[in-house]
Amino acid sequence: MGGRSGFFSGGLHGKDDQRGGSPELGAPPLSHQDRPLGGRRITKKGKTMIEAIVERRSIRSFTPDPVEDPAVDRILTLGTWAPSGLNNQPWKFMVVRDPALKGRLAEQTRYSRVILGAPVCIAVFLDNAQSYDRVKDIQAVGACIQNMLLAIHEMGLGAVWLGEILKNRAAVEAVLEVPETCELMAVIALGHPAEKKRPGSRKPLADCLLGRK
Amino acid sequence: MGGRSGFFSGGLHGKDDQRGGSPELGAPPLSHQDRPLGGRRITKKGKTMIEAIVERRSIRSFTPDPVEDPAVDRILTLGTWAPSGLNNQPWKFMVVRDPALKGRLAEQTRYSRVILGAPVCIAVFLDNAQSYDRVKDIQAVGACIQNMLLAIHEMGLGAVWLGEILKNRAAVEAVLEVPETCELMAVIALGHPAEKKRPGSRKPLADCLLGRK
Repeated sequence: MGGRSGFFSGGLHGKDDQRGGSPELGAPPLSHQDRPLGGRRITKKGKTMIEAIVERRSIRSFTPDPVEDPAVDRILTLGTWAPSGLNNQPWKFMVVRDPALKGRLAEQTRYSRVILGAPVCIAVFLDNAQSYDRVKDIQAVGACIQNMLLAIHEMGLGAVWLGEILKNRAAVEAVLEVPETCELMAVIALGHPAEKKRPGSRKPLADCLLGRK
Repeated sequence: MGGRSGFFSGGLHGKDDQRGGSPELGAPPLSHQDRPLGGRRITKKGKTMIEAIVERRSIRSFTPDPVEDPAVDRILTLGTWAPSGLNNQPWKFMVVRDPALKGRLAEQTRYSRVILGAPVCIAVFLDNAQSYDRVKDIQAVGACIQNMLLAIHEMGLGAVWLGEILKNRAAVEAVLEVPETCELMAVIALGHPAEKKRPGSRKPLADCLLGRK
């Protein structure tokens, strides 16, 4: 299944790491050089966090190139490094590649073309069996999804966060046969980008700032 | 106020940038070398996104060193680069430095020591006047907060996401005199770290993976 004992074990703790991490924080060093990612290799340097945050765009069109399980596991694991209230880690994931199943998912959204065209979809759930506080749990899932989107971008892949499909949440949960406690939060459609995007736009900070006191 | 026309204008679009960004995506280049951050300078290289995600820890103890407005604006602006449903950008921020006001905030949480010890607190709100879909809006605020926590870590600063204070949400909103449409989502206490943290822990990925189909 991967996780810390899987693809991360070499990179986070391997003796061959040259990048150093942040020893003053006691954090393990990291390396993600030369890892296979479904036929592509990610850049040697890696993007800085700030580059990833500002450059990331929604990608809705994908090449037929596959995204293999190790890359998907890396993305999911980085999602789980989001903070959560009392570290309850309330997220659950379902990885969907089967064309017939993607077809049934696609029936539940107006973005069917995106789902059908993506080699992998990740359905993200809030597991209400792990719930601590609904608002904080939903925030945590949002933080988890953002980590995954940033990881996807860093890896040279592309994705779009699909929320419109929540209008048919119950149907999606039935199609995917998830436990009753699992509530659909989003579907991430993921692959190698087949489109180039222009820079995004945001309101000026002044419009978001209530004040300084 | 800052924003794209403030501290970002030189870094994102300056001719002196050598780091390149990702021109194939049409994104503006980035530079955050040699920017003053309340008496510290951030690293020349910057952390990779993946380093930032895995290394970030909650920091609850701070030195007396200040964090000036340009650094706070950078953090807030990176928060606003989170995705949101229909790009509605439903977040609002209040920056709090005043010791008397922090004292009144501190009365609303068991983590009063953290708030009193932080040179800056950022109160984060969902502006229900911007609302599109409550679940998706709360997820977007979570993604925004995660961007800010990653930015803070990249900048060599530290922070903790305080959620417990939501138990006294109405009192905090009254103390901060925010518009009626603004609903408290979290308080981020921010400063220069005065503690070193051990690596965090997460469940194995297998515990979060419902299946592969």
